[in-house]
Amino acid sequence: MDIILFALFLAACFGAGATGAIFSPGDWYKQLKKPSWTPPNWAFPVMWTTIYLLISFAAARVAVLPDNGYAMAFWAAQIAFNALWTPVFFGVRRLKGALIVMACLWLSVLGCVITHWQLDTWAGVAMLPYLAWVSVAGLLNLSVARLNPDVQPLDLSKV
Amino acid sequence: MDIILFALFLAACFGAGATGAIFSPGDWYKQLKKPSWTPPNWAFPVMWTTIYLLISFAAARVAVLPDNGYAMAFWAAQIAFNALWTPVFFGVRRLKGALIVMACLWLSVLGCVITHWQLDTWAGVAMLPYLAWVSVAGLLNLSVARLNPDVQPLDLSKV
Repeated sequence: MDIILFALFLAACFGAGATGAIFSPGDWYKQLKKPSWTPPNWAFPVMWTTIYLLISFAAARVAVLPDNGYAMAFWAAQIAFNALWTPVFFGVRRLKGALIVMACLWLSVLGCVITHWQLDTWAGVAMLPYLAWVSVAGLLNLSVARLNPDVQPLDLSKV
Repeated sequence: MDIILFALFLAACFGAGATGAIFSPGDWYKQLKKPSWTPPNWAFPVMWTTIYLLISFAAARVAVLPDNGYAMAFWAAQIAFNALWTPVFFGVRRLKGALIVMACLWLSVLGCVITHWQLDTWAGVAMLPYLAWVSVAGLLNLSVARLNPDVQPLDLSKV
């Protein structure tokens, strides 16, 4: 594996993941009604760190292979939607808008699993935890949106 | 050019660019001191739309070429930092933090120009307006941070 390629993809993950540090779940998230199966807060940074390392590994493997166009395009799409989700959910508190982003993220991660697997089995396997976790996060987003129908989006222009 | 590849890269741009609609410049931005050469507000969406079309075109051309690993990695990095910048500047109003993101974005766009150009001249040319615009945006961010030293970051946990 080319370590510089790995570092570049990890830098992309760092850019997307920085939103989690900047828009961290505070009192607002704490007071929301959540389903009983909500993962504990500590699980989120642990899972995301693991996933970012795995998908950077997957991308670095696939990046050096021929015919990687679709795999690289899906990878680029997922990292953009990944970066977008946190500011929409925790930033402007648009729970339903975040669901739309999550749907786009889920589809692009599914695209990554398929296209990476076709090129390299280990790269495909490394994408699976991401698909599982985004499925959990999507269901959590859906549950929270349903359990808290009265949440008002934050209008930053009035702050 | 493979139109589905183009559409996937454009979807990534849409994800990153959506931050501009979600965290749009409002009264807070209007009252900031800005340098005399600040582009008018209408120029930003026009430039970004043009740039997103051009860089999706560039990526779609490069994605089908062999040895595109570094080009694809820099492309992924730029779209993540691109998505991150707006929430940092307009969301939590961290003018200096946004400068750090801008530096990462500028370097990854420079990496795109070089790596795309090596693979395909038109792809490299299509990246140039992006580098120019990110240079302008970076200088604008720097000027605004210097002209408004008293701006307080927005603490969303207290909103």
